[in-house]
Amino acid sequence: MRKLIFLPAILIFMAFTMQKRTKVIFFGDSITQAGSQQGGYIIKIDSMCMKENKSDKYEFAGAGIGGNKVYDLYLRMEKDVLEKTPDVVVIYIGVNDVWHKSSSGTGTDAEKFEKFYQAIIDKFNAAKIKMILCTPAVIGERTDFSNPQDGDMNHYSNLIRNIAKKNSLPLVDLRKAFLDYNLKHNKENKDRGILTTDRVHLNAAGNQLVADEMWKAIKKL
Amino acid sequence: MRKLIFLPAILIFMAFTMQKRTKVIFFGDSITQAGSQQGGYIIKIDSMCMKENKSDKYEFAGAGIGGNKVYDLYLRMEKDVLEKTPDVVVIYIGVNDVWHKSSSGTGTDAEKFEKFYQAIIDKFNAAKIKMILCTPAVIGERTDFSNPQDGDMNHYSNLIRNIAKKNSLPLVDLRKAFLDYNLKHNKENKDRGILTTDRVHLNAAGNQLVADEMWKAIKKL
Amino acid sequence: MRKLIFLPAILIFMAFTMQKRTKVIFFGDSITQAGSQQGGYIIKIDSMCMKENKSDKYEFAGAGIGGNKVYDLYLRMEKDVLEKTPDVVVIYIGVNDVWHKSSSGTGTDAEKFEKFYQAIIDKFNAAKIKMILCTPAVIGERTDFSNPQDGDMNHYSNLIRNIAKKNSLPLVDLRKAFLDYNLKHNKENKDRGILTTDRVHLNAAGNQLVADEMWKAIKKL
Amino acid sequence: MRKLIFLPAILIFMAFTMQKRTKVIFFGDSITQAGSQQGGYIIKIDSMCMKENKSDKYEFAGAGIGGNKVYDLYLRMEKDVLEKTPDVVVIYIGVNDVWHKSSSGTGTDAEKFEKFYQAIIDKFNAAKIKMILCTPAVIGERTDFSNPQDGDMNHYSNLIRNIAKKNSLPLVDLRKAFLDYNLKHNKENKDRGILTTDRVHLNAAGNQLVADEMWKAIKKL
Repeated sequence: MRKLIFLPAILIFMAFTMQKRTKVIFFGDSITQAGSQQGGYIIKIDSMCMKENKSDKYEFAGAGIGGNKVYDLYLRMEKDVLEKTPDVVVIYIGVNDVWHKSSSGTGTDAEKFEKFYQAIIDKFNAAKIKMILCTPAVIGERTDFSNPQDGDMNHYSNLIRNIAKKNSLPLVDLRKAFLDYNLKHNKENKDRGILTTDRVHLNAAGNQLVADEMWKAIKKL
Repeated sequence: MRKLIFLPAILIFMAFTMQKRTKVIFFGDSITQAGSQQGGYIIKIDSMCMKENKSDKYEFAGAGIGGNKVYDLYLRMEKDVLEKTPDVVVIYIGVNDVWHKSSSGTGTDAEKFEKFYQAIIDKFNAAKIKMILCTPAVIGERTDFSNPQDGDMNHYSNLIRNIAKKNSLPLVDLRKAFLDYNLKHNKENKDRGILTTDRVHLNAAGNQLVADEMWKAIKKL
Repeated sequence: MRKLIFLPAILIFMAFTMQKRTKVIFFGDSITQAGSQQGGYIIKIDSMCMKENKSDKYEFAGAGIGGNKVYDLYLRMEKDVLEKTPDVVVIYIGVNDVWHKSSSGTGTDAEKFEKFYQAIIDKFNAAKIKMILCTPAVIGERTDFSNPQDGDMNHYSNLIRNIAKKNSLPLVDLRKAFLDYNLKHNKENKDRGILTTDRVHLNAAGNQLVADEMWKAIKKL
Repeated sequence: MRKLIFLPAILIFMAFTMQKRTKVIFFGDSITQAGSQQGGYIIKIDSMCMKENKSDKYEFAGAGIGGNKVYDLYLRMEKDVLEKTPDVVVIYIGVNDVWHKSSSGTGTDAEKFEKFYQAIIDKFNAAKIKMILCTPAVIGERTDFSNPQDGDMNHYSNLIRNIAKKNSLPLVDLRKAFLDYNLKHNKENKDRGILTTDRVHLNAAGNQLVADEMWKAIKKL
């Protein structure tokens, strides 16, 4: 008889515990798509979470698709985020909005970047989902702002910083974090190989830096 | 007592009549924005409608905004179309998706053009709104396909033709209509001045041609 | 004694024969660079020349460099053409001038394309070098002018046709020849595989077609 | 009789004096074209020269044409510089090479920018003409490197700095001078109005700054 009483208690406890897990979705482009793969930043966050014995508190899911720009997020937001009812969404977008201007003539105007970004925030706010915004890290790791897209990357990062401020949302300023790191570790002013493999996509150190910065922000929520 | 019986009858009749008016929204870019202004194609359709004594059957509204691409329509679709509960939407988009590639590096990839276009159709279908699709007319009126964007304009027009077929939706093939017209009336192979003022925006003849083609399609629905 | 008289006679005859060989340089981009490689159009022209027993009349040399635009030809004209004192130069340029607009934002304005093209002609004229001009063939083999760059390709081909006319120079209209061939052999409207491997670079049939057209023009000079 | 002896002496003296004047040509784009107009930097240099009583030592001529890129300079170098046999050429180019990438898809690849720049230097060296190189100043005056083209502007300025070093040529680092000035006088981080009217073309202060920097460099030769 004891058992019969005891088991349901566990189930109730477990159910209670499970309800408390904060579901975090990482919403972004190819960098986030790679984040769910071995060595990726989402995997690293999950590991850190486990190490800190917080696996009962958080669950993580990647929602990154290669080539995505801000309006692509808007298009698939319903299906890939809202329907999955997360508690938190980490929005990490902007590289392709800048990059595709020169690589294929299909980047995103600054004004429209802001408009779509705000529209995404409005939808998530309406669904009571918490958000963490990120600035896009780098297209090239040179520290003297001589990477061809640095002007636009700084410009779009400023836009996101302003959007975060205006909406009172936490910001993971990856662009700043990457620059600070490169100022210390990239004395030769190389354009890749410090935090990225190819000027854009993250190597192990890059994934770790992103994981560290995001994990701090997630725990602060 | 007679009056009391008579008045409600009128009201019922009026309500009945009003219910029967088909509300048509023209959804597009600067060409459609100009369509609501004096001499514009929407004004011309309204005039033709009146002349044919069909004003009790149709009402028309413009929803064009300069610089819009297909994803801009998707963003403002809710507010500018769905909330206005039209019976019919005429979708006339594509010029900027092609043009902005070279003018500002912010055009729309063919693959994403299709994706957003289909997403708009899906939302309108869900709301039981009838649709008429249009191919983008011209960026330059030369008839030997030597206008710089002709390749892409033909490509995106083909995409729209396929979308129309796939979704069994009526198509106003403005690109074809403009070419046919220019083959007759533009023997000198000029790049503007026949149906446009500036290679893109419609002059009186251009507005009339668009009005004629659309009005035919609207009445056929 | 006979021998002593006989040998110089042969040498004089050989020298005379050698002087009569027409030196043809093919001046262009990666398509021409590949033209000197196995299966390339220059090799094919050389073979046809041999078959027709005209090897004592012509010699051929390739001067193509990948990625070249009209102004790159102008820059290396001195070293790669003039210093080699050819009798004839076949100028085959234009694909990258159009293509790089969308692939890297570094194409060539139509107006400057003309200016540099004419400047090259002027230098060759001053050096009494005969010229054959060519239109750029294709960026995509679809026959309905829906290859994204078709508008610009037609436009730049028109510019070259006009330059040829204005300077009374023979023209090998590859753009026309490729379209005619594709209208016959590309019924499925594919964008590659008929005369090119990748929409731009020539396969065996493409190299043969270019060789045929150019060889005809060279013999007519 | 005295007069007859006296006059030729003056003429000889004048001719001697005139031979000693250093002829400086400013070779560039629309900024240099405007430099010869009222309030322009070339006019200002001429005024400073006069004030310092050095008009017998220098003469100045503008050779700027709107829209010019490095390869345009190469094309017109012969006619607009070499034929005028200057002693010094100030080369001020690069804005359009960067800018036209996004505004019309017709900028200049970094690698080709270097190649043409070096080719110009080689020609001037061969003609024993002294040179002063300049970095392009600004496309936007914001000081946090968030002007869209800042990355490329820094990149191309680095290329010119390296070319100057490699060729042991004096450099007027306008990009640095403009940034230093804006860091002092543009506390609000505006993108225009401090040294330019429109982010690119010089206002009175901009013309003065360029004049000051160039005049210093010219006198040092």
